[in-house]
Amino acid sequence: MNDIQDAVYEVLIIGGGPGGLNAALYTSRKVLKTILISKTMGGQVADTYDIENYLGFSQIETFDLIQKFEEHVEKFGIEKIIGEEVTSIDLTGTIKKVSVSNGITYQAKTVIIATGSRPKPLNAAGEKDFVGRGVSYCSTCDAPFYREADVAVIGGGNSALEAVIDLDRVAKKIYMVSLTPLTGDKILQDKVSAMSKVEIFTEYNTEAINGEAAVNGIEITALKTGEKKLLDVEGVFIEIGLMPNSELVKGILPLNSIGEIKVDHLCRTGIEGVYACGDVTNVPFKQVVVAAGEGAKAALAAYGYLVGQAPGYFSY
Amino acid sequence: MNDIQDAVYEVLIIGGGPGGLNAALYTSRKVLKTILISKTMGGQVADTYDIENYLGFSQIETFDLIQKFEEHVEKFGIEKIIGEEVTSIDLTGTIKKVSVSNGITYQAKTVIIATGSRPKPLNAAGEKDFVGRGVSYCSTCDAPFYREADVAVIGGGNSALEAVIDLDRVAKKIYMVSLTPLTGDKILQDKVSAMSKVEIFTEYNTEAINGEAAVNGIEITALKTGEKKLLDVEGVFIEIGLMPNSELVKGILPLNSIGEIKVDHLCRTGIEGVYACGDVTNVPFKQVVVAAGEGAKAALAAYGYLVGQAPGYFSY
Repeated sequence: MNDIQDAVYEVLIIGGGPGGLNAALYTSRKVLKTILISKTMGGQVADTYDIENYLGFSQIETFDLIQKFEEHVEKFGIEKIIGEEVTSIDLTGTIKKVSVSNGITYQAKTVIIATGSRPKPLNAAGEKDFVGRGVSYCSTCDAPFYREADVAVIGGGNSALEAVIDLDRVAKKIYMVSLTPLTGDKILQDKVSAMSKVEIFTEYNTEAINGEAAVNGIEITALKTGEKKLLDVEGVFIEIGLMPNSELVKGILPLNSIGEIKVDHLCRTGIEGVYACGDVTNVPFKQVVVAAGEGAKAALAAYGYLVGQAPGYFSY
Repeated sequence: MNDIQDAVYEVLIIGGGPGGLNAALYTSRKVLKTILISKTMGGQVADTYDIENYLGFSQIETFDLIQKFEEHVEKFGIEKIIGEEVTSIDLTGTIKKVSVSNGITYQAKTVIIATGSRPKPLNAAGEKDFVGRGVSYCSTCDAPFYREADVAVIGGGNSALEAVIDLDRVAKKIYMVSLTPLTGDKILQDKVSAMSKVEIFTEYNTEAINGEAAVNGIEITALKTGEKKLLDVEGVFIEIGLMPNSELVKGILPLNSIGEIKVDHLCRTGIEGVYACGDVTNVPFKQVVVAAGEGAKAALAAYGYLVGQAPGYFSY
């Protein structure tokens, strides 16, 4: 049972990615009493190597960009609880209650949910057994372990293409296996198509991940012909999309069919004083600059609600 | 009568501020055939001196930030028509037609409207007569002309407070006159309140701007008591808010009560294939990072529509 802290914050932000950080920057510039709670800093983008589509930085390593974000927010000073997890949330009433794994329940007049998303599992046979022993969801993190190895990347979107590009620097041979035709940016598709070590299988299902102590191959099946292939690989990078980190508010806030929090053009949710921004929302574009913009909107919408200028929820 | 160009663009962007530029960055990364048409580059933010709330740049001169934006977009290469104005627009049909002051009508499958906003006039007696002879809507542009002069800033929000801060470096005495209590960020209010040369009149109406060859004073009236005051000033900076540049689509797209284009959480408007982003929309937060985020959203929503993944309009 958590102790309830007496202090009532004006804004409590859950999440430390670009959405949460920019929300914090904006609430602190409005001198709102703010607390930010997050397991980690930087969010999902921290799992990529570099980024070339955050307007203003034509090419920057993600680590440096996040550091710039953190320093920027730090300049205005907010309270932060990093390394702890929100365990439950009570959004009824005008004072919201957020319970944290440090044993404390925090109170706040408004809550901004910026919990982001995480990689979707493939649900192939063997996948769970080999996580960390050949199965990876983060090419930036794990590509270096596959020097001169044969690997597979599962997926056909931007993340999969970016994983291939990451791996091109280290692996010997890269199989790209996609259930659909490639869907990522043409600029990335062209880059990947030009790589001599890449072999692409589109409209193939990945049935199983095989191995003993570690992964030694995958089984794929052509959707149209049913033809099976066995590919000998030591590493399998699964890059088939994202799942919103919305479990905390399931049954509490309106979610869409894939579990994303529904927001309007002001980042309002279905409950007064509760906002959401970034990858956890039904805005389908999971981009750093979008999350940052949405974070500013959530913060300014919360401010408007706190000072009585605007309603704190939407209904359409 | 304009000549119609044969080529059909996939995306035509109107406006060269942060929203339009980031839309261009995103459509060009999708290798969509894009054209950007704008009278000027940089948008309204070009009229400010520096900016400290674009996440990642804790303090940068606006000129430098815009240059970084332009260089970033330039890297991917898009077609641009700068210095010309859109004169009319036909959004019926699947191919939209945009007529430009260069005598050409361009055709496109999708249109992104990022035309921004402009300063609102005060509508005080004498205001029009003295534009450029003491009346200004841009402190960054005109503050340097008022070295050691007495000036007034009209308004109580962030733009007004920022104008006072700009003027503090040059003027001798600054009167700040606001119809309401100050509404800008507390951090800016504190800065301004601490300035010895500033005198603040809240809940005062500015009735008239007086002068002969140029401005020599203003008449203000206390809302509560009706008491009149004459302030001797050489410069009047009007900073009372913004008007959307939406005349082009009046009667064509659904607008809100203050003329802003209504958008949903995907920057869709009421017409299929037509998107809007930034200050011209009903997103009330006129911020560079918000416009940039919305620009990305508009671009990706247009892309989704062009490749058949998503409907191009909203209806709620």
